[in-house]
Amino acid sequence: MGSLGEIDEEKYFLYDITKLAIEEAWEKPRDVETPVVNFKSPKELLEAMDFNLQDEPTDNSTLLDHCKDILHYSVKTGHQRFFNQLFCGLDTYGFGGQILTDALNGAMYTYETAPVFIMMEKIVLQRMREFVGYKTGNGTMCPGGTYSNMLAINLARYWKCPEIKHEGMSSTKPLVLFTSEQCHYSIEKSAALIGIGINNVISVTCDARGKMLPSDLERKIEETITEGKLPFMVNATAGTTVLGAFDPIEEIASICEAHNIWLHVDAAWGGASLMSEKHKHLCKGIERSDSVTWNPHKLMMVPQQCSVLLVKRKEIMKECHSLNVPYLFQTDKRAYDPSFDVGHELIQCGRKVDVLKFWLMWKAKGTLGFRDQIDKAFDNAKYLATQVQTRKWFKLVLEEPECTNVSFWFVPPSIRNLCHQKDGDVIFPEDLTNKFYEKLSHVAPIIKQRMQKAGTMLITYTTVASHVNFFRMIIINPMVTTADLDFVLDEIEKLGRDL
Amino acid sequence: MGSLGEIDEEKYFLYDITKLAIEEAWEKPRDVETPVVNFKSPKELLEAMDFNLQDEPTDNSTLLDHCKDILHYSVKTGHQRFFNQLFCGLDTYGFGGQILTDALNGAMYTYETAPVFIMMEKIVLQRMREFVGYKTGNGTMCPGGTYSNMLAINLARYWKCPEIKHEGMSSTKPLVLFTSEQCHYSIEKSAALIGIGINNVISVTCDARGKMLPSDLERKIEETITEGKLPFMVNATAGTTVLGAFDPIEEIASICEAHNIWLHVDAAWGGASLMSEKHKHLCKGIERSDSVTWNPHKLMMVPQQCSVLLVKRKEIMKECHSLNVPYLFQTDKRAYDPSFDVGHELIQCGRKVDVLKFWLMWKAKGTLGFRDQIDKAFDNAKYLATQVQTRKWFKLVLEEPECTNVSFWFVPPSIRNLCHQKDGDVIFPEDLTNKFYEKLSHVAPIIKQRMQKAGTMLITYTTVASHVNFFRMIIINPMVTTADLDFVLDEIEKLGRDL
Repeated sequence: MGSLGEIDEEKYFLYDITKLAIEEAWEKPRDVETPVVNFKSPKELLEAMDFNLQDEPTDNSTLLDHCKDILHYSVKTGHQRFFNQLFCGLDTYGFGGQILTDALNGAMYTYETAPVFIMMEKIVLQRMREFVGYKTGNGTMCPGGTYSNMLAINLARYWKCPEIKHEGMSSTKPLVLFTSEQCHYSIEKSAALIGIGINNVISVTCDARGKMLPSDLERKIEETITEGKLPFMVNATAGTTVLGAFDPIEEIASICEAHNIWLHVDAAWGGASLMSEKHKHLCKGIERSDSVTWNPHKLMMVPQQCSVLLVKRKEIMKECHSLNVPYLFQTDKRAYDPSFDVGHELIQCGRKVDVLKFWLMWKAKGTLGFRDQIDKAFDNAKYLATQVQTRKWFKLVLEEPECTNVSFWFVPPSIRNLCHQKDGDVIFPEDLTNKFYEKLSHVAPIIKQRMQKAGTMLITYTTVASHVNFFRMIIINPMVTTADLDFVLDEIEKLGRDL
Repeated sequence: MGSLGEIDEEKYFLYDITKLAIEEAWEKPRDVETPVVNFKSPKELLEAMDFNLQDEPTDNSTLLDHCKDILHYSVKTGHQRFFNQLFCGLDTYGFGGQILTDALNGAMYTYETAPVFIMMEKIVLQRMREFVGYKTGNGTMCPGGTYSNMLAINLARYWKCPEIKHEGMSSTKPLVLFTSEQCHYSIEKSAALIGIGINNVISVTCDARGKMLPSDLERKIEETITEGKLPFMVNATAGTTVLGAFDPIEEIASICEAHNIWLHVDAAWGGASLMSEKHKHLCKGIERSDSVTWNPHKLMMVPQQCSVLLVKRKEIMKECHSLNVPYLFQTDKRAYDPSFDVGHELIQCGRKVDVLKFWLMWKAKGTLGFRDQIDKAFDNAKYLATQVQTRKWFKLVLEEPECTNVSFWFVPPSIRNLCHQKDGDVIFPEDLTNKFYEKLSHVAPIIKQRMQKAGTMLITYTTVASHVNFFRMIIINPMVTTADLDFVLDEIEKLGRDL
């Protein structure tokens, strides 16, 4: 224990850093004129900031100056004009919950170490399973959606071939999983990691809206069986990363049931729609799945990280993952029933507490507050899509986006002669080798670079299927107004008017 | 953007919750009389607290009351008498760094989204590699040591059989890895997960101090080759979970080099010794390894979570993990060199920012501050071991602990007649079937239960090898005094005096 003076000084430091954090990252970005980013290249940043780790201590006042630099040069993901990723915002209660989590510096494996958080997580997971429609089951919070999807693949494999846990994969026939060509890349990465192999991830064709074609799925499952391989899992996506498409879960579930295949729904992005009366139809059939990934840190705007894996079978996580670990999961514990030690059901040992921030937001807003927030994001996306359609030189990639992704091209003056207008819409050349497309593909990268330098907003761009680079807007934050959305289109026009 | 009144109210809430967190979890536990835990069973806790998630919102004042309950019933891992796990404490600068991290709510995949944190992580990893002795290399922060070890196993497999990434494991011969019988359970769990199988994790015998026997390793590698299997990795542990043993890395490295096997060092616990001139000899030879897990959230007392994987080969992470992901890792970015987008080298997509708290602690203390803090933990462990040896009815499991784990038995009055004293030490019966051992095995669980109810301190107990339940003390926190360590032994005697 330090002297009283030291304690006071350290306490003031904590208050000072909190005040700085609240003012600079929570309050100031509420003024839309605050830059989303003060962009520096890696080289410039190394010159602008002192990253050096030295032998001797640094005094608190100098440390606070470093903290100011960190705040200044970091991207303000809480800014309402940060539309770059599938997460954003800085919810007050979520932020408060994080601070409380940090203060308690816990780890989620035993009830002994984390009694409140273990019970809280059980309750939150139970409520989420109710929204999915699982009558019983289990689940866990994971460090990200990739991890959740990876666990799901592992559980599906265990369900089909439990012997792999002990014997490994070298004597099994090739196990095959199916997912749409527009799914998240975590499916392939996880398949590589867990020994399935990327070549055994079969890509199912999507329709023009980015939704998996059940007929193609069925055909490919049958082909695989003919080839002597073992289909064990289908991953359906509820809200794809780029277009926000929802795979037709009902039809896919019927195919999985007919072939005795584990159905996982990657609803990392679109799962939040389950909390909305208006939009839950998008996930129709999800209760027929075996597992679901749902990231509250995405469309529900819970702070990073908060990803959930829900599983229909109550015991399978334990069967698949548990080992005998006497130093942590003592079976002769006397103070409580050791079945509350959830860690033995998981692969992780120590696990960060992710539940409190989410629970506190839920408690603060109520279920109806989440519903309204989610509905507002969908309304905003609809508004933006309409505006894009209305503006002469903007064109939607998907005419009616299903989720809150809005993807579109901006056609700058120099290539307008290569396409034409019809009934208020831009018509692109039919020939995909037309030089229009090559030129259009450079527009978004150039405007993005200017956007970063201007710092006025952040939006990503990408390609998908045969579509060249377009802007992908993501709408989540309930602070976003229609004025912000108008601004986005105005700003893109402004940044690209000389192109 | 809410009205000014709403913003003020939310801002006050943030200040209130921070004040509460600082006072209850950071300041109050500095008084050792504050309970480490106010223990309730799961059933009692559900009655004592309102966990319920309702439809309607909750007002800020009620929310703060809930936060008080959360703080009251949570374990104070920051308390200097929390000795239960391989982490503890609530460092002021680490806590401050967490708050700043939360405020910036970032994700580590692209420089575009996390410029400051990407650069900071590069610098921290570089400094850690210097302590390990890698002249070049790569690395990443991971959500926990299990994850770091899992990545290491995957990289080792890729290095031996790169085709598995695409083709899966079903046509390879069994891949085998070697680890000591006292290693962390994450090795087996990861092997099960990635398709190696638990049976292909070969357990190498330890000596009485818990250190891997190189002769047994060599023998088992040769056996495995004879059986037609493919040895691809040895995991050496630098600081085992229970006894704190350091495997002899130099000798193991020579065996690995001779057989062309990847050497991973799981220094999650003991890696911090590299920062101490006095103790770095424990990891002698670590620079000959191919990868290292080192968790600053353990012996360096960085807040949860902060786990690092360091890799000697610069390019292998990218080769093993990268895929083509146009929506995130655009190759036509114009504002900066896309090689700064570290996410494509990893399996994770979004990844929580773990570096800032560590960097801020390092900046605040300096390298020498970390050194002193680590040395103090070792000194405290030595003090405790000496005290245990001095006290009549206590007995060390290991006479000279290598790390800051101190494991010991307390022999209560009712079974003292079953053993005897000699030269100031308790001598246990030679016959392991003696009823003394059965009785002794109940002592730690009973005292642990009483300790939880008393709330005065927390220590875990476990078995290892043929040793029945003993207490395992973990010493990390520099606030721990010799008075705290004397208290631990006094309190165990007091709680167990009627046994």
